[in-house]
Amino acid sequence: MERIDQLIKNGIKIIQSDQVFSFSLDAVLLADFAKVKSQANRHLVDLCAGNGAVGLFLSTKTKGYIDLVEIQPKLADLAQRSVHLNHLDDRVRVHVFNLKEAPQRLGSDRFDVVTCNPPYFVDQPASLKNPNPYLAIARHELKTNLNEVLASSSHLLKTKGHLYLVHRPDRLPEILQTCQHYRLAPKKLRFVHPKQGREANMVLLEAMKDGRDNGLKVLPPIYAYTQDNHYTKQVAAILHGDRRR
Amino acid sequence: MERIDQLIKNGIKIIQSDQVFSFSLDAVLLADFAKVKSQANRHLVDLCAGNGAVGLFLSTKTKGYIDLVEIQPKLADLAQRSVHLNHLDDRVRVHVFNLKEAPQRLGSDRFDVVTCNPPYFVDQPASLKNPNPYLAIARHELKTNLNEVLASSSHLLKTKGHLYLVHRPDRLPEILQTCQHYRLAPKKLRFVHPKQGREANMVLLEAMKDGRDNGLKVLPPIYAYTQDNHYTKQVAAILHGDRRR
Repeated sequence: MERIDQLIKNGIKIIQSDQVFSFSLDAVLLADFAKVKSQANRHLVDLCAGNGAVGLFLSTKTKGYIDLVEIQPKLADLAQRSVHLNHLDDRVRVHVFNLKEAPQRLGSDRFDVVTCNPPYFVDQPASLKNPNPYLAIARHELKTNLNEVLASSSHLLKTKGHLYLVHRPDRLPEILQTCQHYRLAPKKLRFVHPKQGREANMVLLEAMKDGRDNGLKVLPPIYAYTQDNHYTKQVAAILHGDRRR
Repeated sequence: MERIDQLIKNGIKIIQSDQVFSFSLDAVLLADFAKVKSQANRHLVDLCAGNGAVGLFLSTKTKGYIDLVEIQPKLADLAQRSVHLNHLDDRVRVHVFNLKEAPQRLGSDRFDVVTCNPPYFVDQPASLKNPNPYLAIARHELKTNLNEVLASSSHLLKTKGHLYLVHRPDRLPEILQTCQHYRLAPKKLRFVHPKQGREANMVLLEAMKDGRDNGLKVLPPIYAYTQDNHYTKQVAAILHGDRRR
């Protein structure tokens, strides 16, 4: 039940499986939002890598090294095969462990950029979870949580290195507070609204390790769909490579 | 050098003075954003009331009582005269004292709604201040600050009472964190962008005293001006009373 999807824009091919994991618009917008220098001496890490979509998209923005960290072996296997399919084995590596261990295994104060599209939902006893365990782990904080994501991100980053996170707007107060706790200064927010006139359902955050705590900018919002349910020009441009937006 | 301005929408007349203080779009958007029940048993307070614009606009949304708190006697005098001009003396009162004293003087755990359009800028020795002392106090945290605003707001509010605040987006992390400290749960954010494609320059916040900390919504943004520098339909509707938006 696997298939290979390709983003027209950057030619990256991604092995998907609806039974296990498929990347979503969140991953595409996160990879687009992340500012990455193109030099080969850059070190990036993507946490909660899933089937590798964010890391694979990032590989088109830089010649640097990218580590993907994913706790679920089945998803890491998809990611590994996509890396191979795109001939990126020399500079994209897939690791299967809990992101808590990432600083110890990959190195502290070492990375220029951390990206993460983590599970969005708090694990509450009463919360409805997906009966599919792969998807439940990807969506609910069963194996990790916001605090651990931000703690690991901070340890992994160099001073002045950047974190790029996508999350749900209802977690924003906790996100900003936990960032501060881990010396991550919020620098940019960008809200994603499903349509004009609707509440935001996603927020993109840029934070800088040991940055000054005085310069948060709220960028123009992104609208995902038009009123008649097509991608907006803005999002189509990100998906298809048209940079006019 | 005083003049009387009138919002077409609600017929409120406001005595203005460019030498001392004039209300701005911030006040209009804050008063529009605030949800106020119409019953006469409601108690509202507007802190940092300036020339009274927010409180006067709110008087058209409710038959309840409104206290205005302003530290600068000259501005409070403008507000008092506008209250009289609009025949609101029986239910709108102007007080001249530091908002720190508001809970003691007006009563703790008593208000349904607090509104505040506070000074936006931190008082730093190096910061450029307006040479006009009235405007400097209105814009810079010389006589009060965010912490005192939120502390007083929390004391003034009843359990489940609502705070409506307008501020600068770059202060958002501090705003959310200080809200939490004073038991004010952020419930809604609405960003105001000067134009499409530009960063937000204002944020509207609704917070609930002792509310649950789990339901922050980010509403659709407001754009203030069109690309050719007219008010957008959205803002013109708020200014002129057309509720279609």
